[in-house]
Amino acid sequence: MAQKPSIPKGTRDFSPAEMARRNYIFSTIREVFGLYGFQQIETPSMENLSTLMGKYGEEGDKLLFKVLNSGDFLKGVDKEMLAAGDSLHTASAICEKGLRYDLTVPFARFVVMHRNELQMPFKRYQIQPVWRADRPQKGRYREFYQCDADVVGSDSLVNEAELISLINEVMRRLGIRVVIKLNNRKVLAGIAELAGAPDKIVDITVAIDKIDKIGLDKVKEELLERGLTPEAIDKITPVITLSGSNDERLAALEALLSDSETGKKGVEELHEVMDMASRLGLTATLELDVSLARGLNYYTGTIIEVKACDVEIGSITGGGRYDNLTGVFGMPGLSGVGISFGADRIYDVLNALDLYPAEISGAARVMFTNFGTAEALRSMEVMRRLRSAGISAEIFPDAAKMKKQMGRADALGIPYVAIIGETELAEGKITLKNMATGEQLTISEDELVETLKQ
Amino acid sequence: MAQKPSIPKGTRDFSPAEMARRNYIFSTIREVFGLYGFQQIETPSMENLSTLMGKYGEEGDKLLFKVLNSGDFLKGVDKEMLAAGDSLHTASAICEKGLRYDLTVPFARFVVMHRNELQMPFKRYQIQPVWRADRPQKGRYREFYQCDADVVGSDSLVNEAELISLINEVMRRLGIRVVIKLNNRKVLAGIAELAGAPDKIVDITVAIDKIDKIGLDKVKEELLERGLTPEAIDKITPVITLSGSNDERLAALEALLSDSETGKKGVEELHEVMDMASRLGLTATLELDVSLARGLNYYTGTIIEVKACDVEIGSITGGGRYDNLTGVFGMPGLSGVGISFGADRIYDVLNALDLYPAEISGAARVMFTNFGTAEALRSMEVMRRLRSAGISAEIFPDAAKMKKQMGRADALGIPYVAIIGETELAEGKITLKNMATGEQLTISEDELVETLKQ
Repeated sequence: MAQKPSIPKGTRDFSPAEMARRNYIFSTIREVFGLYGFQQIETPSMENLSTLMGKYGEEGDKLLFKVLNSGDFLKGVDKEMLAAGDSLHTASAICEKGLRYDLTVPFARFVVMHRNELQMPFKRYQIQPVWRADRPQKGRYREFYQCDADVVGSDSLVNEAELISLINEVMRRLGIRVVIKLNNRKVLAGIAELAGAPDKIVDITVAIDKIDKIGLDKVKEELLERGLTPEAIDKITPVITLSGSNDERLAALEALLSDSETGKKGVEELHEVMDMASRLGLTATLELDVSLARGLNYYTGTIIEVKACDVEIGSITGGGRYDNLTGVFGMPGLSGVGISFGADRIYDVLNALDLYPAEISGAARVMFTNFGTAEALRSMEVMRRLRSAGISAEIFPDAAKMKKQMGRADALGIPYVAIIGETELAEGKITLKNMATGEQLTISEDELVETLKQ
Repeated sequence: MAQKPSIPKGTRDFSPAEMARRNYIFSTIREVFGLYGFQQIETPSMENLSTLMGKYGEEGDKLLFKVLNSGDFLKGVDKEMLAAGDSLHTASAICEKGLRYDLTVPFARFVVMHRNELQMPFKRYQIQPVWRADRPQKGRYREFYQCDADVVGSDSLVNEAELISLINEVMRRLGIRVVIKLNNRKVLAGIAELAGAPDKIVDITVAIDKIDKIGLDKVKEELLERGLTPEAIDKITPVITLSGSNDERLAALEALLSDSETGKKGVEELHEVMDMASRLGLTATLELDVSLARGLNYYTGTIIEVKACDVEIGSITGGGRYDNLTGVFGMPGLSGVGISFGADRIYDVLNALDLYPAEISGAARVMFTNFGTAEALRSMEVMRRLRSAGISAEIFPDAAKMKKQMGRADALGIPYVAIIGETELAEGKITLKNMATGEQLTISEDELVETLKQ
């Protein structure tokens, strides 16, 4: 019983200091979601495995946490399968439920189940944990939060522009300098057509994606290996080495992809999205990047990825447009566009750059010392007044030694200590100590409220 | 693939309207927790089963959701046990982790693991879902939120008074009229002593607890059945039929329990807590109720229970003082006092009394109509200005029929629609329609901001 307890690997406890920082991030995102008219939903942590299985590929299925059926779960289970040690099939026989792996599949399930109550276009956001039985490593956890916003039931590119503006606003509020990178799946299809290999869109994109890391020559080698002809590679080289302003890149792309209907449509969409988003007054840099190849088996139009300028870290937000969110649940043709904020990476970026505002500590603004019942009662009356004014306050519950009491305020980062001792009690005053400066003043209740409000 | 999807029984989806109401409750509670100097922590959804098992009694163990080990979980598992269909032992062999059943055991585990980083007294709050494999029924779910606040590492009754004041403030803000009932385990022990049956404290309490439902005579019958002598029952009858004001009840209790040291201590504690709490200016009624028997196998001092005055429903908040939170994890002697808000019941009370403020709908404050690209771009510029002023805004993404666009605002409960058509575009004006009154005004951008701010 009394062994030292631990938590499952890949999971985390969050201390008050960590929670204050995480709440700051989540409430910033939540507030901006609300400003843009997105509405929150929540779905259960457990979904039926029939909802989850087959939606994330074979690898994904293996990473699902499965929940054991309650009660006598072995009853009626095939004895031979058990005896054979067939874990895969046994799991299906003894588990009906699993923990949600992402927020997209539950959202699709939600839309299908509630389609008659929903107003289309439906703009939802969702901030909840997800679980993956991944090998834990630095920055990768088995339980982590996702923060998703999606608009479904509208093909309009206004949605893309709004989401880009929303990302810009979140990053501006958090103080993170970012580049918002844009691409379009149709442009990638056009490049594959240009190479005469429309079926090789993924091969080509995977190779192009490496250009920053390995350089043009190696990318060309890889394209050869992946079966492109030298002529095809020559044809697409100007596309993958695009430079200049976004307008110059768009113009060049338009010329190069002029024989591909799909490619031209992609360029047009990019043009419209970038134009609208710019009119919304972005503070971040918007950059057309044809090497962007996020979620190719899912996204059908716009692709969005956000990189922090001042920290070496992967994408901190991403998203794109998809054609068919709910087909897998028997409701075809529902298109949409969505983004997902990487809360854990944003947390790392803010830590690395020390961008947290000082006032988010989560500790009370003032701690009252405790010299005994009479003083404590008077302190609690004053605290009542402070709290009515929105000022957080606590009292040291025991009449402990002064040093211990002050030590608490210091350790918790409580900025003020209020002292009501015998003298203050008699005079109806409060002595207020500023913990940062050490300054100490004996003041009235009214003055206390005013000082602490600032 | 295309079968109609569903969710596991006993779990819930929350729609935007439901989330708006839930967020209102949670943020009210969270804000008051903060005002009283409680700091938030979070613990993982999954705990090791070694942490959870044996902490909730035999029944509780059965209600734990167990998570199947990843990978080849049958490897090395005793084949005979499997063949025998021994679900109980097999579960332990194939599951290391379980979903948290409450917030108390994870909190105790947290305190033990982080004891060197924590500042005592430690005042924490925690708002997270818990899971129980209970038979679902009306008002009972398999996944639900708990909202707990605890102070550990202090024996001072100041903590009780603060928590009562905190409950009062939460209920006052939510507009729920409540009675806060108080008892003390030591008083119950004193009553058992008075009856000459200190080992029968639970039997006596269970019987007393029914007095409101079944009346004094039936309670006496039950006490007889539970083995009390007629003389003992006569002795404790005045205690269980206490009436009058709290002060009168306290005085009567003090006299009746004068031979019990424990009983007298309980009366003294009740006196002190009620005195301090009253001095804090409660708006709720505080009521001494010796029939209150919550958590008897856990609480050692103060017992708190909160009942709504205007709705027939069980306790909506409860708590008490305990002696030994962490002994089970090898860290003895840590006492504390805590409360837990029943968020789902509070939700039901607010629904029953229709106490939600109008402004919490969660929908945008204004929707812009869409007449095409030029008008939409201008609308988005105006929206940018509104959002900077903290006013939530959205635009209908497609240039759909006017009726459809207005229908959306109506269905979502968006209070204003802003219209920028050809004329408004030319004149630099906006037509604003108040959806409640039907009133329509053509105004400038500045006037729009002012109107929507109100």
